Amino acid sequence: MAARSQRGDAADAALGRRSVLGLGAALTGSLALGRDAFAEQTDAAPPSDAPWSQSLGAGVVDRPYGRPAAFEAGVIRRNVPWLTAGTESSISFSPLQSLNGIITPNGLFFERYHAGRPDVDPARHRLMIHGMVERPLLLTMPDIMRFPSVSRIHFIECPANGGMEWRAAQLNSLQFTHGMVSCAEWTGVRLSTLIEEVGVRKEATWAMVEGADGAHMNRSLPLEKCLDDCLVVYAQNGEALRPEQGYPLRLVVPGWEGNVSIKWLRRIKLGDKPWFSREETAKYTDLMPDGTSRGFTWLIDAKSVITFPCPEKPLNGPGLYEIRGLAWTGNGKVTRVDVSVDGGANWTTAQLHAPVLSKALTRFSLPWRWDGKPALLESRVTDETGYVQPTITQLRAKRGTNSIYHNNAIQTWQVKADGSVFDVQLG
Amino acid sequence: MAARSQRGDAADAALGRRSVLGLGAALTGSLALGRDAFAEQTDAAPPSDAPWSQSLGAGVVDRPYGRPAAFEAGVIRRNVPWLTAGTESSISFSPLQSLNGIITPNGLFFERYHAGRPDVDPARHRLMIHGMVERPLLLTMPDIMRFPSVSRIHFIECPANGGMEWRAAQLNSLQFTHGMVSCAEWTGVRLSTLIEEVGVRKEATWAMVEGADGAHMNRSLPLEKCLDDCLVVYAQNGEALRPEQGYPLRLVVPGWEGNVSIKWLRRIKLGDKPWFSREETAKYTDLMPDGTSRGFTWLIDAKSVITFPCPEKPLNGPGLYEIRGLAWTGNGKVTRVDVSVDGGANWTTAQLHAPVLSKALTRFSLPWRWDGKPALLESRVTDETGYVQPTITQLRAKRGTNSIYHNNAIQTWQVKADGSVFDVQLG
Repeated sequence: MAARSQRGDAADAALGRRSVLGLGAALTGSLALGRDAFAEQTDAAPPSDAPWSQSLGAGVVDRPYGRPAAFEAGVIRRNVPWLTAGTESSISFSPLQSLNGIITPNGLFFERYHAGRPDVDPARHRLMIHGMVERPLLLTMPDIMRFPSVSRIHFIECPANGGMEWRAAQLNSLQFTHGMVSCAEWTGVRLSTLIEEVGVRKEATWAMVEGADGAHMNRSLPLEKCLDDCLVVYAQNGEALRPEQGYPLRLVVPGWEGNVSIKWLRRIKLGDKPWFSREETAKYTDLMPDGTSRGFTWLIDAKSVITFPCPEKPLNGPGLYEIRGLAWTGNGKVTRVDVSVDGGANWTTAQLHAPVLSKALTRFSLPWRWDGKPALLESRVTDETGYVQPTITQLRAKRGTNSIYHNNAIQTWQVKADGSVFDVQLG
Repeated sequence: MAARSQRGDAADAALGRRSVLGLGAALTGSLALGRDAFAEQTDAAPPSDAPWSQSLGAGVVDRPYGRPAAFEAGVIRRNVPWLTAGTESSISFSPLQSLNGIITPNGLFFERYHAGRPDVDPARHRLMIHGMVERPLLLTMPDIMRFPSVSRIHFIECPANGGMEWRAAQLNSLQFTHGMVSCAEWTGVRLSTLIEEVGVRKEATWAMVEGADGAHMNRSLPLEKCLDDCLVVYAQNGEALRPEQGYPLRLVVPGWEGNVSIKWLRRIKLGDKPWFSREETAKYTDLMPDGTSRGFTWLIDAKSVITFPCPEKPLNGPGLYEIRGLAWTGNGKVTRVDVSVDGGANWTTAQLHAPVLSKALTRFSLPWRWDGKPALLESRVTDETGYVQPTITQLRAKRGTNSIYHNNAIQTWQVKADGSVFDVQLG
């Protein structure tokens, strides 16, 4: 132990010198990353032994279900109190500024409630499938879990994501401008499997899907989409759905606005016309400049955003950085993301990180050497249909400023000389 | 509300009839799944309104960091008390019997400690890279996060997984026979990027990697593997590593036994020979029948297991089921899984579920109509090198019964006529 302590002391001294030098001042070399006082010590001692290196830690199953480090206590979902009348019909935003890769951990997946989060007993929960079918069914959870299963990685986005930015940039936060999108591995049964089981009557063309929450939240879906890629889901990222994501059962409608992915799913009724429910007439329609309303605007058009740097994660002095971001499209796969550092005058194609999956978040990155001057960062996605993400000006020219939904505009982050980052909209 | 109550009552009555019929007795039809008393009601009422459908639920950010449903309280990591002297140098097992897809949620990822779980302060944590390098470095966490990032989905398995089964079947539990394997999306920096940054001296052929835990757990790795696909990781399934997985920094050595994926990583030293540390001499070697020891047996050979049915998840009467399982190999990709229901006499190729990723868990499934008679279920994986998973008899013929490591034998589950499932080994 004496030997180890001495080595620790040596490292301490070196650490001291290093912190005197300061990493910022010491930046040199090919990647402009930190060099330090160890440069001349080719056989240096290991880093100082901190208290946690000098004692036994906690045992296994000390936390039979794990939780994040205490140091990460600030990485949480947040809401905007003035946005809704109460928290029971509101939204929480995922902290995209602190997330990596494409999987959103279940504890940080954004929430959207229409009548609060019910605590459903899976033993009492039932799924009814009826209406224009040959053999109506009432299924228990064990019944549903017995069907052939599939797992798919898909994003879910609320169409109001970015809605507060339609008229002007006002929230200096990645979490609040884009945090209503998350992505997970979903496991369940193809809706087409269940529909085959009940038998479609030939006149059926629509389905009504309904939740067991206090709002009985319901939406109409074309039967064609139901038979294409919809999933009746009981697990998310390996484990049972969380209560806020529809435990014990939800629909996942890949690539379409989140509110049709009905949570706490209790009923699917087939019919020959849409139901025109409250949530597709009074809500989730887009008022156009000419006074008409767009309805049934389910598709999530291609969208992207730079997640680093961002207002919550500023730059720390000039040098080499990796611009990082997320792109997604309801149309299938992202095929390309371009990045601009001058407000859209010039574009460079970013690297897409594998795996690039259909209707899933896709990571992109681009190395960038910041010279310390003001910059305007933007990302622009293209999807497999050739659709290109529009500017906010292009979007307003088409749709005006009455709606709050389906804002998939290019996001501009203004970088100031001190490295701070601001949400702006270019004229 | 009156109308809804009446409809609820109608559904209640139907539910009553259904539970009298009993799902098991009512099984008919193409999938032999539940029919019920709604068969004749093509426009039936929705299911009864449970209490949670008649009130407001909890609001958003009621739990800013989410947690599982109370009904899932039994889905936790567990340990085997007699396996080790204390919990600080022990293992917890992941509840594979309750998991779906290929992602293990962070709260249920198996744990392995050598001196307990340290609570490391990321602001004080450093990674030293030194030894036979041109420019030694001492890096802070922000330094590391500034390097180009990658995300990869990989499994980690402890080589002792299944070790308790070497001599005889003794644990009637999927969680305890196979629960030391988990899979996540890891984000960090390629180790090759960091090694390029420090510059390798031409005589260097090995690396020593060391943790900041009280054990200073360390292992030697060939430089070739370090430069191939190793990652220095700070995030798991999107968020910061959990403390039990090495917060704030760990190594991930894809496809190799878990103990080389050093957690709480604080040091990488390059040299020209292995270090022969305690954990590669006294531990993690395999004693052969002839008295010699296999050392540096890093590779995880191809392995698979049926996760449903299993001892914790028995069958509920004859009928159609989906046999489900997991397969993985340190060699790259799984190419095929065969399933037997008669103890290996006959085999049927199972379906592999996309995405099939290199050095990641892969899901497989096979529909199976159980006739209610005793059965012996097995799965057998083949990987892209052509390697075929062996039987326990084949493994013992080669390696004897002295070692506890690298048991990748075919698992046999015995299904009895009452649907219960037992861990057995065939003669």
